[in-house]
Amino acid sequence: MTEFVRRFLVHWNDCDPARIVFHGNFIRWMDEGFTDMTRARGVDFAALAAEDPHFRGAPLVDLRCSFRTPAHFADMLEHRIAPPAFPGGRAFRVAHRFLLEDGRLVAEGEQTRIWGRDEGDGLRAVPMPADVLARLGG
Amino acid sequence: MTEFVRRFLVHWNDCDPARIVFHGNFIRWMDEGFTDMTRARGVDFAALAAEDPHFRGAPLVDLRCSFRTPAHFADMLEHRIAPPAFPGGRAFRVAHRFLLEDGRLVAEGEQTRIWGRDEGDGLRAVPMPADVLARLGG
Amino acid sequence: MTEFVRRFLVHWNDCDPARIVFHGNFIRWMDEGFTDMTRARGVDFAALAAEDPHFRGAPLVDLRCSFRTPAHFADMLEHRIAPPAFPGGRAFRVAHRFLLEDGRLVAEGEQTRIWGRDEGDGLRAVPMPADVLARLGG
Amino acid sequence: MTEFVRRFLVHWNDCDPARIVFHGNFIRWMDEGFTDMTRARGVDFAALAAEDPHFRGAPLVDLRCSFRTPAHFADMLEHRIAPPAFPGGRAFRVAHRFLLEDGRLVAEGEQTRIWGRDEGDGLRAVPMPADVLARLGG
Repeated sequence: MTEFVRRFLVHWNDCDPARIVFHGNFIRWMDEGFTDMTRARGVDFAALAAEDPHFRGAPLVDLRCSFRTPAHFADMLEHRIAPPAFPGGRAFRVAHRFLLEDGRLVAEGEQTRIWGRDEGDGLRAVPMPADVLARLGG
Repeated sequence: MTEFVRRFLVHWNDCDPARIVFHGNFIRWMDEGFTDMTRARGVDFAALAAEDPHFRGAPLVDLRCSFRTPAHFADMLEHRIAPPAFPGGRAFRVAHRFLLEDGRLVAEGEQTRIWGRDEGDGLRAVPMPADVLARLGG
Repeated sequence: MTEFVRRFLVHWNDCDPARIVFHGNFIRWMDEGFTDMTRARGVDFAALAAEDPHFRGAPLVDLRCSFRTPAHFADMLEHRIAPPAFPGGRAFRVAHRFLLEDGRLVAEGEQTRIWGRDEGDGLRAVPMPADVLARLGG
Repeated sequence: MTEFVRRFLVHWNDCDPARIVFHGNFIRWMDEGFTDMTRARGVDFAALAAEDPHFRGAPLVDLRCSFRTPAHFADMLEHRIAPPAFPGGRAFRVAHRFLLEDGRLVAEGEQTRIWGRDEGDGLRAVPMPADVLARLGG
């Protein structure tokens, strides 16, 4: 399974008074990119939620991100998402890199996620359905 | 019934590369301020939602905002919310003003809201409960 | 000059506990769409800012938005932006519509903008450069 | 030096369709809390930026956050920020915890920051001014 790649422009409101992308936006983009990647591979979160009212998506349990080079307004970012890693247990990991058009690394991060359900007694990790797991390369 | 007033600092990520508050944040602050105002007057949206799973809060149907003077990082903003206006019909209006400490007007806006329910066939406006109406001065 | 059209998915964090798009996101999207539209027509705000350190972009002086039909997670939105209107004076208007794939209108809004400069004594409206005006159909 | 503590309500737009706080908001709150903490200790970023046009604040080079218990709309969060740690070198660390009113831990994270300047050739870490260092307990 290959990396999932998407590209998008840095917009005005993504940037702060230092004229660079505010770091919190990379966290948002990692989440959006995860959705885009799963969707591109046939995992439909909206349909899964419609089927199971207790389904709570794939919430994060941990994240980290390192910032290497600032990105600026109107930069085109390349967002590269590695195939999820399933190290055992109920959590899985998704690695992200953001690059400028000249190839410089802007930020790299990792999400640790679970497959979440809540039957009214709190969010818990459940096994990922086999067909979802297969679609994500696990 | 008097204006509801809250004060808060402009944070770094509220500002854009022009070093002024990005306009979208005033829209967010109007929504947050409406919640703070209703809460201060004893309207508990979380409790209302817990009581009625079809309750959808007080969604906006219309908003406008005019921007007069820029606000900057670390400015203290005074957010003044007028008592809601109930002009008849199911919509009500909430007027907002944001001021700098020296009294200059930064932005002024107005939200038009309904009391929303969704029984599965789409969001619709329903009459505001009498006790909520009384608490908001209607 | 024709409408500018862009399409994008509604992401998880665009939605609120009522499971619909939080209204503030349409305000952000109108701003991003304005940038995309101007860029597509050859107006490069980053280059303009690099040329003129006093340039402050095209800040809003007024906005309004009406919300017609909720949009939900994973909806594909079509964002249609009319050619700017130049009614005289230094402000210009940009009309926006957001539609679902079935053609239903989700939201429609209008931005009133100026061409902004700040030489240290505050933001002010200046005439739009002739080549920018021509590119935007004025 | 003691922990810096601030409290705030979870607002509607902070929450996602799972009815819990979207994780990206904790990243934003960590940034806002850092500003509030430094301000409370007499470090005025706006004044520092006004004095030195090349000053770029205290940008993040790294962050991590773990999410333990969901927070919901209208929860009151207690945000506790430890005194910054200065392990040597030019980076410093700021540890954050978010707690519910009943004491349960919602999230805990850590920011690694530098003191940033950009003279036109890119952002770089410079030594923190001695008086700022003293105010932050270093």
